[in-house]
Amino acid sequence: MSLPRVTVWNEFRHEKTDPAVQAVYPDGIQVAIAAFLQKAGFPARTATLDEPEHGLTEAVLAETDVLTWWGHMAHGDVKDEIAARVQKRVLEGMGLIVLHSGHMSKPFMRLMGTGCDLKWREAGENERIWVVEPGHPIADGLPEHFDLPHEEMYGERFDIPAPDQLVFISWFKGGDVFRSGCCWTRGAGKIFYFRPGHETFPTYYQSEIQQVIINAAKWAAPGNLPNVTFGQKRIPLEKLD
Amino acid sequence: MSLPRVTVWNEFRHEKTDPAVQAVYPDGIQVAIAAFLQKAGFPARTATLDEPEHGLTEAVLAETDVLTWWGHMAHGDVKDEIAARVQKRVLEGMGLIVLHSGHMSKPFMRLMGTGCDLKWREAGENERIWVVEPGHPIADGLPEHFDLPHEEMYGERFDIPAPDQLVFISWFKGGDVFRSGCCWTRGAGKIFYFRPGHETFPTYYQSEIQQVIINAAKWAAPGNLPNVTFGQKRIPLEKLD
Amino acid sequence: MSLPRVTVWNEFRHEKTDPAVQAVYPDGIQVAIAAFLQKAGFPARTATLDEPEHGLTEAVLAETDVLTWWGHMAHGDVKDEIAARVQKRVLEGMGLIVLHSGHMSKPFMRLMGTGCDLKWREAGENERIWVVEPGHPIADGLPEHFDLPHEEMYGERFDIPAPDQLVFISWFKGGDVFRSGCCWTRGAGKIFYFRPGHETFPTYYQSEIQQVIINAAKWAAPGNLPNVTFGQKRIPLEKLD
Amino acid sequence: MSLPRVTVWNEFRHEKTDPAVQAVYPDGIQVAIAAFLQKAGFPARTATLDEPEHGLTEAVLAETDVLTWWGHMAHGDVKDEIAARVQKRVLEGMGLIVLHSGHMSKPFMRLMGTGCDLKWREAGENERIWVVEPGHPIADGLPEHFDLPHEEMYGERFDIPAPDQLVFISWFKGGDVFRSGCCWTRGAGKIFYFRPGHETFPTYYQSEIQQVIINAAKWAAPGNLPNVTFGQKRIPLEKLD
Repeated sequence: MSLPRVTVWNEFRHEKTDPAVQAVYPDGIQVAIAAFLQKAGFPARTATLDEPEHGLTEAVLAETDVLTWWGHMAHGDVKDEIAARVQKRVLEGMGLIVLHSGHMSKPFMRLMGTGCDLKWREAGENERIWVVEPGHPIADGLPEHFDLPHEEMYGERFDIPAPDQLVFISWFKGGDVFRSGCCWTRGAGKIFYFRPGHETFPTYYQSEIQQVIINAAKWAAPGNLPNVTFGQKRIPLEKLD
Repeated sequence: MSLPRVTVWNEFRHEKTDPAVQAVYPDGIQVAIAAFLQKAGFPARTATLDEPEHGLTEAVLAETDVLTWWGHMAHGDVKDEIAARVQKRVLEGMGLIVLHSGHMSKPFMRLMGTGCDLKWREAGENERIWVVEPGHPIADGLPEHFDLPHEEMYGERFDIPAPDQLVFISWFKGGDVFRSGCCWTRGAGKIFYFRPGHETFPTYYQSEIQQVIINAAKWAAPGNLPNVTFGQKRIPLEKLD
Repeated sequence: MSLPRVTVWNEFRHEKTDPAVQAVYPDGIQVAIAAFLQKAGFPARTATLDEPEHGLTEAVLAETDVLTWWGHMAHGDVKDEIAARVQKRVLEGMGLIVLHSGHMSKPFMRLMGTGCDLKWREAGENERIWVVEPGHPIADGLPEHFDLPHEEMYGERFDIPAPDQLVFISWFKGGDVFRSGCCWTRGAGKIFYFRPGHETFPTYYQSEIQQVIINAAKWAAPGNLPNVTFGQKRIPLEKLD
Repeated sequence: MSLPRVTVWNEFRHEKTDPAVQAVYPDGIQVAIAAFLQKAGFPARTATLDEPEHGLTEAVLAETDVLTWWGHMAHGDVKDEIAARVQKRVLEGMGLIVLHSGHMSKPFMRLMGTGCDLKWREAGENERIWVVEPGHPIADGLPEHFDLPHEEMYGERFDIPAPDQLVFISWFKGGDVFRSGCCWTRGAGKIFYFRPGHETFPTYYQSEIQQVIINAAKWAAPGNLPNVTFGQKRIPLEKLD
């Protein structure tokens, strides 16, 4: 099976204005993510908020098997029309990987139907990610737990629909826990939310994090989908009396 | 435990214009549903589309433990603001029972995040509802299957998130199947979708149907909910280094 | 609705031999649990391993709506026949609440089908229980998190089938997390696993713990179950050609 | 990714004694299934009940990524020791595809923990399989529904744990429905139950059926599993006070 075509979307605002972020991701988070995907053999391109149509034209989405989404300070700048377009493509089968602060992005919130809020704290504390579903494809090749030395804390209650599969739970030194790797199917599309990735930490350079995103991109790729029809069916398949 | 306060919402348009519907529900579907709920001891009131704020003011919703929703021809006339208000109340804990053609209503679609479409046929064919989860509270007191002699057909694929619990599956004489009793939790609120209830058939007078809606209203009622907080938590519960 | 009849089962061995356990539960864990259930209005009785048929005769189980199970050092002394009897009754609709080290008990393992193993450490460390599903009846009346000052640690990977509903996740000071409140349905019966309850700590005297077990007993109680039939059905409900 | 190594297990008794079965599967169901798997590129071998250790030695299972299981008249002849061995391997990660009457086989019942019973009728009636989860890998390349002209009927209630994913629902002309494609994870292993396959019908020669089994074998194959550890962890990952 050939690897899915991934479009790596990033808000790409912090990187333009905040030296602390520039120091970690000088070319933007999207470039860091696309780089390790390309190295792993994925046809990966990038798209960002300030491009026309946020870089997510109908043509781009039509050629995208899996979309990754990082956004934070400018969720409100994403046009409703583009958010609806992404939602529609997910329902048609495109995979969606929502990263970190993307939990409050328009496409994710539309697909979840819930508030998607959580607790947070920027103290650079230690995060430990535990694999709770070792047989899941997204846990492939991981250790049973791994640490991120410094991360923003996200804590429960995370206001999401109960995930179809819960793959990871995070432990934080400050006393919090979080469902940090969550899978859902919506329409024909697969969605994975992955917690880590604060913009001031080198999270996307860490090998386990890269492994998770690579696994998730493979898992979320659509196959050869059944042709589902909707609407009125005047003629029944079986004879009525 | 006292019974929850139910608000029975109905679009109440078919009944005003279509003699075939008037013949079955002369006072509207909402009155038929409220009547059997009241008889069962529920404090039940009605609300309809053409009332101010569709009868769903902040005050009414604040006093509603469980909302039932029937709509069909006028989904588009429901104001986005009211649909958002219903969604918000569900996330806060209000139960929601979505009936029949309510599958394409704004509140349900917002909460599901999917297309919610399906196949349909108006041939008055026989529907048989099978209990697949007999231990679920919504199956309480039912036989293992029961028939509706004449109903509109709804067939799979039903474009919903996989239900948290699937209680009923329908068999249709014309050759279709349908997940006809589906439970979800969204935020702190419980949602139940129940398939039957075409406006030209006396479905809501059938005892098993009434039993299901009564069971669902009990199941969907919020309890004494934990006080969940969100947002920044500067001070960790545990000392950081 | 009247409260369900609860049978509180305890291995009742540690309490007979270990002064540290006697100091906390002089009459046995079963008496401590039955006491708060009775105080809350439940008809509750106790049963223990060393009674004839472990106190779980056909007659006792027939009169039991919900069984709670605490066992640890003597799982192997439970007769297979009695474990099978408990399993059968759960499938018929009896609720089962499995406490702490009951995770390796015969009835639980038979019902789960998995290894049910986990990590553990007896260091008396702090456990914090987070509510992750605030709308669930078992979270009724709880705060969004609460602490147990000293408990045995149980850590992931917990080798269970993914719970139908995950209500609680525990944080441990030593760096571990655990799915500490898990719901399943098996047959017509509801099962709840609840993590805390090491025999040397006064866990079952803590008000939040009592609240959880009270909530779970209500949730797990069977209703008026549909009469499900199995086996050959020579005569179809619909005419075949 | 190379294709998983499949062992196709069959009871292989009907074929030896019943001319009606011999006429359809002269070499045994196992040979028919292994043939289309091999044609699709899978390294597939067969194993049958009357071989030593039922053909499922430790060595064979160690080299098996996915096991398919067909049994019916001789479930009781499967040794408990071998059933336990299969269960253990599934928990360690081996995929298991349970076919048709295998619903009452020892390995499946041990893994499910429930009665696994259902309704049945041998009338050669028409079965229609509907895809309800089109995005699932096991639905890959299928039409939205397909028919089996003559099959044994299996009807609900099917006494299984609610599947983690429900992929197919069957409609039967005689008035029954059935959850005919069910996925679970147990331990690190993936399990798929697939309903069709009565021994007197040429079900396993039908292209859609072959497609489903091929898809399921790919889906159920274990990856590079995390090394999960259990038991006492004296030294915490974080310093305790």
